[in-house]
Amino acid sequence: MAQDTGSARPFDDFRNLVATMPEADGESVATVRARDAVLTKPPGSLGRLEEFVRWLAAWQAKPLPGVEKPLMAVFAANHGVAARGVSAYPPEVTKQMVANFTAGGAAVNQICMANDISLRVFELALEIPTPDIAQEDAFSESDCAATMAFGMEAVADDCDLLCIGEMGIGNTTVAAAIYHALYGGQASDWVGPGTGVDTDGLALKAEVVAMAVTRIGGPGGDPLEILRQLGGREIAAMAGAIIAARHQRIPVLVDGYVASAAAAILHAFDPGAIGHCLFAHVSAEPAHREVLDRMGARAVLDLGMRLGEGSGAALAVGIIRAAARTHRGMATFESAGVSNKA
Amino acid sequence: MAQDTGSARPFDDFRNLVATMPEADGESVATVRARDAVLTKPPGSLGRLEEFVRWLAAWQAKPLPGVEKPLMAVFAANHGVAARGVSAYPPEVTKQMVANFTAGGAAVNQICMANDISLRVFELALEIPTPDIAQEDAFSESDCAATMAFGMEAVADDCDLLCIGEMGIGNTTVAAAIYHALYGGQASDWVGPGTGVDTDGLALKAEVVAMAVTRIGGPGGDPLEILRQLGGREIAAMAGAIIAARHQRIPVLVDGYVASAAAAILHAFDPGAIGHCLFAHVSAEPAHREVLDRMGARAVLDLGMRLGEGSGAALAVGIIRAAARTHRGMATFESAGVSNKA
Repeated sequence: MAQDTGSARPFDDFRNLVATMPEADGESVATVRARDAVLTKPPGSLGRLEEFVRWLAAWQAKPLPGVEKPLMAVFAANHGVAARGVSAYPPEVTKQMVANFTAGGAAVNQICMANDISLRVFELALEIPTPDIAQEDAFSESDCAATMAFGMEAVADDCDLLCIGEMGIGNTTVAAAIYHALYGGQASDWVGPGTGVDTDGLALKAEVVAMAVTRIGGPGGDPLEILRQLGGREIAAMAGAIIAARHQRIPVLVDGYVASAAAAILHAFDPGAIGHCLFAHVSAEPAHREVLDRMGARAVLDLGMRLGEGSGAALAVGIIRAAARTHRGMATFESAGVSNKA
Repeated sequence: MAQDTGSARPFDDFRNLVATMPEADGESVATVRARDAVLTKPPGSLGRLEEFVRWLAAWQAKPLPGVEKPLMAVFAANHGVAARGVSAYPPEVTKQMVANFTAGGAAVNQICMANDISLRVFELALEIPTPDIAQEDAFSESDCAATMAFGMEAVADDCDLLCIGEMGIGNTTVAAAIYHALYGGQASDWVGPGTGVDTDGLALKAEVVAMAVTRIGGPGGDPLEILRQLGGREIAAMAGAIIAARHQRIPVLVDGYVASAAAAILHAFDPGAIGHCLFAHVSAEPAHREVLDRMGARAVLDLGMRLGEGSGAALAVGIIRAAARTHRGMATFESAGVSNKA
C-alpha cells in the first residue's frame, strides 16, 4: 500500500524540488538593463549578447553577472537498445570514449581547453546498460530517481555556468523515443542519422522508436514516467543536474539533440523548470530544430554540429562569457565623453 | 593624355594585385581532410568547424593551421553625408569612439580582450570627411587608391587571422549606396535603421542613397569606380586590407553590414578575390542577409548584432580558433584505441 501513497514514491522528492525552484531575479535584470542603456553603443546593438547578459543576471541573481568558472559535465551511459544496431559504432565505444575524455583526446577536451572550461566526466554504470527499451522499461522509479540524484550531486557549487553534455552509443535512439513520446507525430519525425547510419539504419531506428513508444501506450504520458520508461541514465542524470543547478543559482547551457531530451522532459513537466537553460546550438540531427521550437527555445549557434559530448555547449561558452565581459567592461557615454543619441 | 592610358591610372596597381593573388592551397586542405577522417568522432560531426579548418588551411597554406595571433583592424572615417542627418548620432561620435577604443572602453575592446585578439585602430583623416555623396564623388581615383594602399599597410604580417571592422557615423548610408549601385533594385531595399533611426530617418536614408546612385548613373558601374564615387575611406581601406592579407596568406574574418561592403566591391570586381574571407555574422541590418547571399556567403554567427566596430568578427574568432585547436589536438581512433565505424 505504501507504494500507492504519494509521499512514498521516489519521484516525489524530485517533484518537490521542481515545485520549490527559485524564480528569475527581476531586480538583477533591471540593473543590467539600466547599465546597458548607458554603455557606449546604440541601444540593442549587441543583439542577443544583451539578452544573454540578462539571462545570466536573472538566474545567477547577480546585477553584474559573470562567466569566470564554467563547468562542463559530461554524462556517459550505455543502452541495451544499441544491441539492435541503431548506431554506426559498436557499444564498446562509449567506454573507449570516456577513456579518451580522461586522456584529453576528444573534441570536447579541445574546446574546453580553448575556452578555459573545467571538464568533469561522470560514468553511469557503463557495464550495466539500461534494458532494450523496445522490450522493457529503462528503469524502476527508484533507479531513475537515484540516477537523477546522482546528476544533482554532479553540480559543483563553485561554478557560475554549467554545461551539460553526454556520451552513449545508442542514445540518439533513446532521445528520439522521448521526443516521440512527449510530442506525438510519427516515430520517423524524430529520428535522424545520429553518428551516421544509412537509410536502412534510419528505418531501423524509426521502427525501434515506434516499438518503444507503442510499448508504453503511445505518446502523451507523464513526463517523468516517460523518462523512467525510455531512459537513459545520462538523460536522467542531466535532468537532475538541470534542477540542482537551478537551486544553486547556476544557469545551464544545454548541448545538442540528446542533452535537449533532459530539458524536454522537464519542460513537459513544468515549462518554468528550464527558464535557466539556454540551448547552445541547433544540431544537424534533423529533429532538433523542431524540439527547440516545442520548447520555445532559440539556440545560440547553428553550425551543423552533431557530435554531442557537450561540444556545442563548450563552444557557446565563449559567446556567453564575451557577452558578460562586454557588459561589465564597457565605458558609459558619460565616462567616455561620447555624445549620446540626439 | 597620360591619365587616359591604362598603366598610368592609380587603380591599375590594385587591379594587378588582384590579378596576381595566390590561390587556395589544395595540398594543405587535403592534409586536413586526411587527418579529420581519423580523429575520434563520426565523419562530419563537427559540422562547419571542419569547414573552418579547411578554410584556414587553404588560405594560410598550412597543413596544420592555427589561430594564435589574431589581429583586429578597425578603420574609422567620417562622411559628409552624415550632415544630412542619416544617423541617430552626431558626426563627432566617430572621433569620440576612436578615443573610446584607445581607452579600452568600447564593446570591441572587451570582446578582443575576452578572445585574446590584438586590436589596432586606424584613423582615416577624421577631420576631413569625404564629400556628401548625394552631391559629389567621395574620392578622386588617386585618393581612393591611396586609401586602399593605407589599408594594405595596416595588415601586420605576423598575424594569422585578420579581422576587419569599422567606425564611422553615416557609414551604413554609404554601404547601402554601394549595395544599391552593385546590386540594383530599389534604394530602400538596401537601407536599414543603422544606429537606430526612426521611420522618417529611414525614408531620408533611402532618399539620400537614391540620389547618390542616380548621380553616378544608376546601378551597374565598374566596382572600383563605385567605391571611388560612393566611398568611404574606411571601406576603401578595408578593401585594401583584404587584398594585402591575401598576398600575405592571412585569412580574413569580415565583420558586419559595413565591412561587407568592402568585400562586396572586391567580389563584384572578381569573385575569387574574397575566397580567403569568412563572414563573421549576419547583422540585424535587414539587407545584410541579402548581401551575403549575393556573395554566396554563409555567416558564422547570427546573433542580431548591429554595432560594427568589428564586434561580430571578434566574437567569431573564438569559434574559428576552437575549430583549429580541436583539429590539432584531438586523438585519432588508433592513438586513443577507440573502435571505428563498423
